[in-house]
Amino acid sequence: MIDQQNQSEIVILSGGLDSTVCMAIAYERTNTAPLALSFDYGQRHKIELERAALVAKHYGSRHLVVPINMPWKGSSLTDMDIDVPITELSSSHEDNIPTTYVPARNIIFLSLALSLAEASNAQGIYIGVNALDYSGYPDCRPQFIDAFQKMANVGQARAISGNPVKIHTPLINMTKAQIIQRAISLKAPLEITWSCYQGLDQPCGKCESCQLRQKGFAQAGLADPSLAQ
Amino acid sequence: MIDQQNQSEIVILSGGLDSTVCMAIAYERTNTAPLALSFDYGQRHKIELERAALVAKHYGSRHLVVPINMPWKGSSLTDMDIDVPITELSSSHEDNIPTTYVPARNIIFLSLALSLAEASNAQGIYIGVNALDYSGYPDCRPQFIDAFQKMANVGQARAISGNPVKIHTPLINMTKAQIIQRAISLKAPLEITWSCYQGLDQPCGKCESCQLRQKGFAQAGLADPSLAQ
Repeated sequence: MIDQQNQSEIVILSGGLDSTVCMAIAYERTNTAPLALSFDYGQRHKIELERAALVAKHYGSRHLVVPINMPWKGSSLTDMDIDVPITELSSSHEDNIPTTYVPARNIIFLSLALSLAEASNAQGIYIGVNALDYSGYPDCRPQFIDAFQKMANVGQARAISGNPVKIHTPLINMTKAQIIQRAISLKAPLEITWSCYQGLDQPCGKCESCQLRQKGFAQAGLADPSLAQ
Repeated sequence: MIDQQNQSEIVILSGGLDSTVCMAIAYERTNTAPLALSFDYGQRHKIELERAALVAKHYGSRHLVVPINMPWKGSSLTDMDIDVPITELSSSHEDNIPTTYVPARNIIFLSLALSLAEASNAQGIYIGVNALDYSGYPDCRPQFIDAFQKMANVGQARAISGNPVKIHTPLINMTKAQIIQRAISLKAPLEITWSCYQGLDQPCGKCESCQLRQKGFAQAGLADPSLAQ
């Protein structure tokens, strides 16, 4: 049980590359172990939660894994009857949001994080969304984060008393290569991160998440340390 | 499991007076049984979920009860170490939000409802918030609902394709007496609704929720049918 004395910054941690860099950035900015918040929402790549636990341990962070029960369909990440798509990376997603989109996922993640922030007196929430090398999910774009912040600023008791929770998106305008370079400079443990959407023992190398990661390492001129073992 | 063929309007149903009137209004507007969505969030007055099931049954509605796991403190509704306050009704709440406020509760409720709406092709979500005879919760006010709608309009795939989920708040500018009068005219089953915050067998008659209900029936010049047995 988390109480009001916690006051650490909260990082929404999937166990992937981006959220791990957010852990590193929050740690660097505050010189304190952030509170790591992960969600078990029925994702097929549940292995990411094991990796999230390792990342949290790396930073000496307390790690909360909150189950989210969504007894409805609508995404290839949570519905085993829909295959994760294997397609070429697309530069435009305006009319082509992939089936890996989970309805309102980041809205739900941020809402639960807001509640935890208010209950624990955390100043802010870090989320590793980015809108350059991404899958076109609407809930990763700056206009969504801006609107969510405005909503939180009028919807929470803490905001009414002049102390709104701040949502930090340090990666939102970075390419995947830039995120990787930032990770290296901060010595983030990329070797234990997991990005693949498939629920296999090894990354498939073919899903969009794997392709975005490969492209990022290639553009950064670096080898992916998670594949070195 | 809910699939994309559902398409009913969604009503967030606590089993209380306001959300039951929302069921009646949604039913009247669409001439179709709404999908009733309740949340088990560790509330001490879990009896309301039994009443929600009865209300859903009354309307021939499918009833989903989704558990929300919030392993943190912060409210007398979910923390049994904090008593539900017994005080006089206050007309101003600007600096005095009661301990029954649950951090980000309506934000979380609406977020999960948004996900369900997108997954089930529902056109809209009904929520029984009102900002006249209320407890001063910031997430019951029109400016919060407006900001939440704007956020949903940029955060969901459905919104990007020109079909945003509409949030309906038919009670937001009504007094409790007006809500009760509307309930009577729509023959809503007020006798099975539950408003009390205490987890007792009978309404305590003293908590703010009981007092607001009593005041509403008194102003409407009616007896509360839930107390008639």
